[in-house]
Amino acid sequence: MPQKVRIALDAMGGDHGPPVVIPGADLSLTRHPDTEFILVGDRTKIEPLLESYPRLKASSRIVHTDVAIKMDDKPSQALRYGRWKSSMWLALETVKKGEADVAVSAGNTGALMAMSKFYLKTMAGIERPAIAAIWPTLRGESVVLDLGASIGADTQHLLDMAVMGSAMARILFDIERPTVGLLNIGVEEVKGLDEVKDAGQLLRDRNLPYLDYVGFVEGDDIGKGTVDVVVTEGFAGNIALKTAEGTARQIAGYLRSAMSRTIWARIGYLFARGAFRTLAEKMDPRRANGGVFLGLNGVVIKSHGGTDAEGFAAAIDIGYDMVRYELLAKISQMLNSVPRVAAEQAAVESAP
Amino acid sequence: MPQKVRIALDAMGGDHGPPVVIPGADLSLTRHPDTEFILVGDRTKIEPLLESYPRLKASSRIVHTDVAIKMDDKPSQALRYGRWKSSMWLALETVKKGEADVAVSAGNTGALMAMSKFYLKTMAGIERPAIAAIWPTLRGESVVLDLGASIGADTQHLLDMAVMGSAMARILFDIERPTVGLLNIGVEEVKGLDEVKDAGQLLRDRNLPYLDYVGFVEGDDIGKGTVDVVVTEGFAGNIALKTAEGTARQIAGYLRSAMSRTIWARIGYLFARGAFRTLAEKMDPRRANGGVFLGLNGVVIKSHGGTDAEGFAAAIDIGYDMVRYELLAKISQMLNSVPRVAAEQAAVESAP
Repeated sequence: MPQKVRIALDAMGGDHGPPVVIPGADLSLTRHPDTEFILVGDRTKIEPLLESYPRLKASSRIVHTDVAIKMDDKPSQALRYGRWKSSMWLALETVKKGEADVAVSAGNTGALMAMSKFYLKTMAGIERPAIAAIWPTLRGESVVLDLGASIGADTQHLLDMAVMGSAMARILFDIERPTVGLLNIGVEEVKGLDEVKDAGQLLRDRNLPYLDYVGFVEGDDIGKGTVDVVVTEGFAGNIALKTAEGTARQIAGYLRSAMSRTIWARIGYLFARGAFRTLAEKMDPRRANGGVFLGLNGVVIKSHGGTDAEGFAAAIDIGYDMVRYELLAKISQMLNSVPRVAAEQAAVESAP
Repeated sequence: MPQKVRIALDAMGGDHGPPVVIPGADLSLTRHPDTEFILVGDRTKIEPLLESYPRLKASSRIVHTDVAIKMDDKPSQALRYGRWKSSMWLALETVKKGEADVAVSAGNTGALMAMSKFYLKTMAGIERPAIAAIWPTLRGESVVLDLGASIGADTQHLLDMAVMGSAMARILFDIERPTVGLLNIGVEEVKGLDEVKDAGQLLRDRNLPYLDYVGFVEGDDIGKGTVDVVVTEGFAGNIALKTAEGTARQIAGYLRSAMSRTIWARIGYLFARGAFRTLAEKMDPRRANGGVFLGLNGVVIKSHGGTDAEGFAAAIDIGYDMVRYELLAKISQMLNSVPRVAAEQAAVESAP
């Protein structure tokens, strides 16, 4: 039997803290009984809740702290007062020390990324981490990165993201060679930033073993599911994600008001309730909850701050998969086959 | 009685050419009888169609050419073979020569922008043009720019876009002082590119007469309608637009399949048909068709290439409004009150 997956939870993270984290962990444990949890946070708030979840209680231990990062703290503030002692930091510490395989937090994204970078450091060969999410599409799901870990991306960072996103897609979708596209804009000749063009050229030339580069994709290709992995720098990626969320909410708003305007619409709604339920499930942001921090010495998962137990369990599930199917090993393996831009340029320059 | 609005149409532009352009012009003419049209394109294709639209025939003249820019031409190709003689170029020429007040084309965006820049040139004080669109929101509509005229934007370009977008919003929404937001990403401290921060600071400090700067907005604020004008550089703006279009199509796809899956859903659909029609109208991309090229010596409107007569008429209507309510004069008036970044920096540097 394989070793258990050891998951550290920032029990105080998110808008709700333990009342979402504890039942979420219990839900995920039902799906993956080979899990052990480290619950990091205020013992006086965690222990009473655990009484209702005996199975989780038996599979977990508590690391106590009464310091928690607030949702609106700036990353630098959070680092200043939360280092060494906040629930977020201590959850990362269990990963750093090898006591846990993955840390999951619904806390403040900026603080979590700042602490992860500071404490876990980036993997050898990776300059900057990225945040990747699972994006529901018409064809299923895709991995999209970077959603805002950093702004701007040079050629090397784009290549590294193609590799890291593919490693994640190989695990999630259980495919050997995910298709990869670089996000770009449509006008043929302005066609994008030089670094995007260069990264595309390198990916095409190399024809890497574990990813199938298909070329540039545009914003509407994300929802279509044209490729398994969409790579872009963090500013545009974040704008794309938030714009899609906004559009989904906007259409849901239109639909709600249209379905309640007339008596006929209300009757129709009653008949079609099952269909609307299916639609709501399709659009449920909880299903795809869980941003994966890629490029660090350790696996860190960011859950939406406002999610419920179901959503938090989804984030834990992603963390479980990333560990069970060896995300870090897959990334390292792939990185070895990826061109190092600086080294290549140096080689070209020193060529006779 | 005020002078007529003189509109030049690239009759050969778009996926369909005259069969969409001619009935579209006729539709718009019903709404604005004080319009005169110059129909630029192949006389042998335009004239037979005009026979069905006597009113349009009486209010238009034809400028003949048998050269048309293809939808997939690269801008440089289009300029090379289409200059001086294509329907797109000649439509712009009527504006350049003062024979028309605005040119409307459903042709290739890149070619239209390249020709517009080359021939009409940018307004005094404006370095780069921008493409602005009307974006349907939960609160009504907003103006969003730049949607891909150029990649990247320095502080000055962002300020200029705030002004140009506001001038457009003043006309469209008939408000004196539209609210303006700069598109940015959510993480507090990475908070965006330096130029976005600088532009925000300058807009806040100046408190300009014809726009009300409210701060940074995120991707999901576009659909919410948080501000009347959303300003961003062209790469992120194009990604946002296409991502929103993709998401809308995706949800429409989910909805269609949900509503046809069971007999109950189909019955419900019949009852709620009116509601679905309202929804479809809300989501109809034809309603907001018409990208406005801002910052040129002349008004140029880009219609979607694949639109129908109704959609093309909407693009003409926007062109009509931009002329009737004096877009160019409004922009010039506002530009005078806007800081010139380079001049200010020089002033600071030469200060004692």
